[in-house]
Amino acid sequence: MSVPASVVKPPLVDELDIVIPTIRNLDFLEQWRPFFQPYHLIIVQDGDPTKKIHVPEGFDYELYNRNDINRILGPKSSCISFKDSACRCFGFLVSKKKYIFTIDDDCFVAKDPTGQEINALAQHIHNLLTPATPFFFNTLYDPYREGADFVRGYPFSLREGATTAISHGLWLNIPDYDAPTQLVKPRERNTRYVDAVMTIPKQTLFPMCGMNLGFHRELIGPAMYFGLMGDGQPIGRYDDMWAGWCAKVICDHLGLGVKTGLPYIWHSKASNPFVNLKKEYKGIYWQEDIIPFFQSVVLPKECTTPQKCYIELSKLVKEKLGPIDPYFEKLGDAMVTWIDAWNELNPLTDGATTVKIEPSKTK
Amino acid sequence: MSVPASVVKPPLVDELDIVIPTIRNLDFLEQWRPFFQPYHLIIVQDGDPTKKIHVPEGFDYELYNRNDINRILGPKSSCISFKDSACRCFGFLVSKKKYIFTIDDDCFVAKDPTGQEINALAQHIHNLLTPATPFFFNTLYDPYREGADFVRGYPFSLREGATTAISHGLWLNIPDYDAPTQLVKPRERNTRYVDAVMTIPKQTLFPMCGMNLGFHRELIGPAMYFGLMGDGQPIGRYDDMWAGWCAKVICDHLGLGVKTGLPYIWHSKASNPFVNLKKEYKGIYWQEDIIPFFQSVVLPKECTTPQKCYIELSKLVKEKLGPIDPYFEKLGDAMVTWIDAWNELNPLTDGATTVKIEPSKTK
Repeated sequence: MSVPASVVKPPLVDELDIVIPTIRNLDFLEQWRPFFQPYHLIIVQDGDPTKKIHVPEGFDYELYNRNDINRILGPKSSCISFKDSACRCFGFLVSKKKYIFTIDDDCFVAKDPTGQEINALAQHIHNLLTPATPFFFNTLYDPYREGADFVRGYPFSLREGATTAISHGLWLNIPDYDAPTQLVKPRERNTRYVDAVMTIPKQTLFPMCGMNLGFHRELIGPAMYFGLMGDGQPIGRYDDMWAGWCAKVICDHLGLGVKTGLPYIWHSKASNPFVNLKKEYKGIYWQEDIIPFFQSVVLPKECTTPQKCYIELSKLVKEKLGPIDPYFEKLGDAMVTWIDAWNELNPLTDGATTVKIEPSKTK
Repeated sequence: MSVPASVVKPPLVDELDIVIPTIRNLDFLEQWRPFFQPYHLIIVQDGDPTKKIHVPEGFDYELYNRNDINRILGPKSSCISFKDSACRCFGFLVSKKKYIFTIDDDCFVAKDPTGQEINALAQHIHNLLTPATPFFFNTLYDPYREGADFVRGYPFSLREGATTAISHGLWLNIPDYDAPTQLVKPRERNTRYVDAVMTIPKQTLFPMCGMNLGFHRELIGPAMYFGLMGDGQPIGRYDDMWAGWCAKVICDHLGLGVKTGLPYIWHSKASNPFVNLKKEYKGIYWQEDIIPFFQSVVLPKECTTPQKCYIELSKLVKEKLGPIDPYFEKLGDAMVTWIDAWNELNPLTDGATTVKIEPSKTK
């Protein structure tokens, strides 16, 4: 007896939230309707909270603006960036689901080389639900994919892999370049569809872009803090990078896997390179010290949860990066505030939370 | 004024040798003729030295059989495997060129998704002549490829990359599986063309397959020893793996890059899985200790050449792997013999070698 189609639930439909930071009407959702409509959306409205954001009919969502963030977090709201898409991590905080998919509102449905529309969310879910291989490199890429396997010489003891915590998707059309590269190559478009998902090996850092990103919120959510960016801060456009560096060293420490590659989305418009340069220039300079710092971070064995790891990392940030600029002292404090907020909204007691979170709007 | 076509030399034509280990007539070269004919071939004939190997007309080659190996190396010939394709490394030893491309005689010209024949050699040369990025992961793969670059968040100080020492190509049709996987999945074929070249990050090991492999002989040749396999040895089919593990830790130590991905060749036939299992089973068992050994190897700063690194590694192999099986004592000694042979045939004095190497046959 076959199950009626209407009863077949999309994968993880009750266990995944889609988080979208935005300052404008979410017309881009129309294109994603066939893929996103069954899922719950958390919209984090940035900028002017009095502005009304239009969400297309038929989507199930909750929306938080700055007033909501301030009301829900109180003084702890200082850790959530304003006038920067870094505010998206507020959505990670208030979600009660096991998985998150986050996407920018200038990202559309891409097509694969056969012309088929790519269900990015389904691919992220597949990536998250199959193991990763951080301990040894498989030359035929994802060994869990149909038609592939571990190649000769891959140690058998490592073939169970590691639980995947992060699935980092890519972009066709406008590549995710920094301001200097945007300025030098204004016309460059990414047209190459690389049909691969791969694990970023242990002890290797990568530039994590928040545009098209899935993750296991229970396992790595507390490390997915997007830092202090935008309004009142000396930098921008390093929010996802910061989260990526922190999350990767914590995944390495906890034995979790990070994948990159498929799915592609279609990135429609490049942001203004001159504005970006202004946001980025301190980050471009600072990252020359930040990267060696993260490459050498060693977390103590006692850090067995992402929260504990993150608190430990916040201390190291203050100690090792503080001397670069007072900003890192502030950031280290904000990292602690973030974990306080996380623990408050996500108490470790199993069962329902005691903290009541009320969005501005739901549907 | 345009240069006449006949004067345009193929890339590296005077600086690269193609090394082919074989036991049979080299009819497979017919298919490669448009790509290989301008280059010099070094054929290493395995097995019965009285057997005549036919090489198609028009190729420029030198051929060495077991008698030649014994004659040229004398007692040092003990380090060159017999009745195993590991003998290919003799070709690396006698070459006087800067680069090597080595290919198995059951590998044919593959086609890309547009139906175009792939010039595997040209792609290896491109991989070797452009830098690698072992210190940080670039999510859009090879940043030096046309239409690609470093993504946002990639440290600018690392964008010069590292010199590429190894270019590891892949296989369409028959994937390079171990005997257990061959037995379990006898019908699996690799049909996925992944349009990417990537750097294997520093501190990450990979299973290096010798079927379709390019490398910078001057920079890493001394580490490209294919070990003791086949006749009289307890294992086979770990020759390239051994070379890959050793070469990777030495590349990491010397700051050199290792790439994998394109080019694909068409691997025509799977070897017998039952025979393979017999060759492999000790390796499958031993590699569970060998991999952690290589993952933890630290070479001293004084090791500034591949030779010095390799001698140091031979000591560590004897010390750390010797307790597993007496085979590793023998292998450690053979590693030293290999370097002795390398230094004899490749004296460090610049200019012509004083050692005269005469193949059986040349054309």
